[in-house]
Amino acid sequence: MKPNTLPHVVVVGAGFAGMKTAQKLAGKPVRVTVVDRRNYHLFQPLLYQVATAGLSPDEIAYPVRAIFQDKKNIDFLLAEVTGVDFDARIIQTERGLLAYDYLILAAGAAVNFFGNLSLAKNALVLKDVPDAIRLRNHVLRMFELAAHEKDPVERQSLLTFVVAGGGPTGVESAGALSELIRLVLRKDYPNLDISNVRILLLEASSCLLSGFPADLQAAALKSLSAKHITVKLLARLAHFDGRQARLESGEVINCQTLLWSAGVQAAEIYQHLSLEQARQGRVKVLPTLQVAGRENVFITGDASYLEENGQPLPMMGTVAFQQGEAAAGNILRLVAGKTALPFKYADPGSLATIGRNDAVARIGNWRFSGFIAWVIWLVVHLIGLIGFRNRLIVLINWAWDYFFYDRAVRLITRE
Amino acid sequence: MKPNTLPHVVVVGAGFAGMKTAQKLAGKPVRVTVVDRRNYHLFQPLLYQVATAGLSPDEIAYPVRAIFQDKKNIDFLLAEVTGVDFDARIIQTERGLLAYDYLILAAGAAVNFFGNLSLAKNALVLKDVPDAIRLRNHVLRMFELAAHEKDPVERQSLLTFVVAGGGPTGVESAGALSELIRLVLRKDYPNLDISNVRILLLEASSCLLSGFPADLQAAALKSLSAKHITVKLLARLAHFDGRQARLESGEVINCQTLLWSAGVQAAEIYQHLSLEQARQGRVKVLPTLQVAGRENVFITGDASYLEENGQPLPMMGTVAFQQGEAAAGNILRLVAGKTALPFKYADPGSLATIGRNDAVARIGNWRFSGFIAWVIWLVVHLIGLIGFRNRLIVLINWAWDYFFYDRAVRLITRE
Repeated sequence: MKPNTLPHVVVVGAGFAGMKTAQKLAGKPVRVTVVDRRNYHLFQPLLYQVATAGLSPDEIAYPVRAIFQDKKNIDFLLAEVTGVDFDARIIQTERGLLAYDYLILAAGAAVNFFGNLSLAKNALVLKDVPDAIRLRNHVLRMFELAAHEKDPVERQSLLTFVVAGGGPTGVESAGALSELIRLVLRKDYPNLDISNVRILLLEASSCLLSGFPADLQAAALKSLSAKHITVKLLARLAHFDGRQARLESGEVINCQTLLWSAGVQAAEIYQHLSLEQARQGRVKVLPTLQVAGRENVFITGDASYLEENGQPLPMMGTVAFQQGEAAAGNILRLVAGKTALPFKYADPGSLATIGRNDAVARIGNWRFSGFIAWVIWLVVHLIGLIGFRNRLIVLINWAWDYFFYDRAVRLITRE
Repeated sequence: MKPNTLPHVVVVGAGFAGMKTAQKLAGKPVRVTVVDRRNYHLFQPLLYQVATAGLSPDEIAYPVRAIFQDKKNIDFLLAEVTGVDFDARIIQTERGLLAYDYLILAAGAAVNFFGNLSLAKNALVLKDVPDAIRLRNHVLRMFELAAHEKDPVERQSLLTFVVAGGGPTGVESAGALSELIRLVLRKDYPNLDISNVRILLLEASSCLLSGFPADLQAAALKSLSAKHITVKLLARLAHFDGRQARLESGEVINCQTLLWSAGVQAAEIYQHLSLEQARQGRVKVLPTLQVAGRENVFITGDASYLEENGQPLPMMGTVAFQQGEAAAGNILRLVAGKTALPFKYADPGSLATIGRNDAVARIGNWRFSGFIAWVIWLVVHLIGLIGFRNRLIVLINWAWDYFFYDRAVRLITRE
C-alpha cells in the first residue's frame, strides 16, 4: 500500500507533458495519480502513419499502466476530468472526486475548426487513434468505390484528397498519402488510372512549415511537388459539405476527402476552469508554469501559454516534454520547502518528413534536407517511442515498407 | 484489361473457402470476382488473441487485393451481397448488380443466439475484428473500474468473466483470458487482489470440445482447472442482462462480461435465397457441392450442408479449405466440358490450445496434449497465416509474450 502521508500529485493527461512529469516523480517522496480518458500514452508525431496504413495503433500507443508497472508510487485513473475546485483542491471526474495537494494540468490540445460547422461535421481530423483509423478506412474506401465507378467525374471526385494546413502534420500526411497511393495502392488497383489521383495541400498563409527556416520551407515545397502534391498557398477553406470544398477565393474543388490539420486549441476542459486564457484557449502561466495565485497548480504542454522573447512558446512535443520535466522539478522543490524556478525552453530544433528518403530538419543552427534529414528523423522518432518491443516492430514495419514498397495495415474496419 | 470472353466466376466471401477457390482459379481460363463486405481475409482461428491483447488486428487480417496483387484474372468488389437471381445469373449487392457464369457462395457463418434477445443485446461475441476489439476494450475497462471500486460486491462482479460455449473458441478464449489476467494484468494492477478474479466456462452438453477424443477432452478439462477456470458442464444459459447471468437451473452469476461462443448458424444472406436449408440454416448441397438443379452454383464452407457417413461435415476451417479447392476444380472441369466430381473430406485432425505450453491435438489417430500439442498448434497456425510479414511479426509478438509475460496490445480504444 502507498503511504498516504506523502503529498498527492495529480497529473491530468498522459501526453508528452504529463508522462514526463510522472516519470520524473517516480520513486520520489510523493504519491502520483495520472488521470486520462484513454488508458494509453500516444506517440502523436507518428499518428499520420497509422492513418496512411504504415503502422498499426499499438505500435505508437502504450498503456500507461505498462509504462509505470514497476513504479510503486504512481497510480492511474481512467476517467474524463470535468472540472476543478481549486479552493477545495479537488478535481471532478465522471468517476467521482479526487483530492490533490499538487495539480498538473497537461490535457493537451484539441482540433480547432474556428467555428466552421461544415468542417466540424464533414472534415476528417488526426488527433487520436480512432481518428487515424477513420481516415485510413475512408481513403481505402474511396479507392474501392473508384475501382468500380464508371462515371469519370465521380471517379475524379473520389480520387481527390485535400489536406488543409501546411504545418508538420499537414505536410507529413500529404506526403505519406501520396506514397501510399503511388507506391502501394497503385499495385492493388491495376485497372485504376493513377493519373486520376489528385492530392492538394492548402495553406492559408504564404508559406509552409511556419517556424522553419526559409530554405527548408522551399525544400519542403519542392519535395511535395516531386510527389505530385499540388500546394496552394494563401488558400483559405470556407466550406466543405462532403462533396465539394469551397475556398474563400470562390474556387470549388470536387472532393470527398478533406483532412483538417489547420487549427488547434487548448482542450475543452480549460474553458471550464475560470482561468485567464490567451489565444487558442491556452491558459496563461507564470514563468514557473504555475497558475497565478495558485502555487500548487501547474499547467504544462500545449495548453500552457508562456511567452519567451515576446513570442508564445509553440504547441510542440519538445516544449511539452521540457515543461513536464520542469514542473516535476518545481513540485519536488516546493515539497522540500524551496521556491519554484522559472522554465526556460532549450530549442532542440524541428523536424518534418515528406516521405521516403526525404525530410527537413533544423538542429540548432544546422539545417538538413533530403536523405540525411530523413535518417535524423528516423533515429529521433525511434528513440522517442516508448518500449523496446514497439521500437523493434516499428523498425521492422518501416524496413519492410522501405524495401518492398508495401504497407501492412490497409484494412477497412467496420466503424 | 481482362478478356471478357472468359467465363466469369463470382466468389461471395473472402474466408477460408472463398480465398482457396480464388487461389486455385488464379491464372486459369476464367475471370474471377471476389465479393466481400470486408476488404480483408481474416485468419479467424487467432481472433481470440486479438480479443485478449496478444495480437493486433493487422497481424491476422490481410487485404484481399494484396493477396491477389499479381493475379491478373482476379478482381475484388467491396460490397454486401443482398440477393441472387439464379435464373438471370445475377447477384444483387448494395453497390449494384453483378452477372456471373459460375457462382460460389462462401459467405460463412454468423453468431446464433437461438432467439435469446437478452443475449443478442448484452453478450459479447467473437466473429470479426470489431468484435475482438470490443471484447478487449471491455475486459480492460472492467479492470480499470475494479481498480478504483471500493464496494467488494461490485468489484467481484466487475472481475467475473463468463464464457458460454465449450468448443475450441470458448476453450481458447477462456484460457487466453486467464493468462492475460494472471500473467500480465496482475502486474498492471498491483493493488488489485487477483483472487477476486473468476473465470467460468459454461457448456450445455456433458463434455468440452465435442468431436475430440475423450482423453483429450479430459486433458483440456484438467488444463483449464490448472488455469483457475471453473468449468460448468450441463450448464445452459437462460438470460443475461449485463449485470447478472441466469442459468436454466436457476443459478445466478453476478457478472458484467459474457462472451457468447455457444452457437453458430449460416450467414444471414442464405435465408433470402429460397434454397433448401438444413440445421443451423446451412444449405443442402449435392456431393459435388453444387445446388440441386443449378449446376453453375456451388456452396462451400460453413454454410454448406453435406453429410458423410450419416453425419454432417463440421463447420470448420479445414472443411472450408478443402471445399474451396474442390469447387474450383469442379468449375474448371465444367468449363472444360467435363462433369463435376464428388467432394470427399480428408480429416487432418483437430487442434485447440489452452494457453502457454498447453494444447490438445489429434492428427489422424495420433493424440497429443501439453507442450508437444502446443508446438504443433504454433507451427500449424504460423504456416496458415497468409503473408510472410504477418508470420514474422506474429512470431515476434508470441516470442515476446512467451519470454517476458507481456502483452503488447492492451489498449482501450474509443468506440
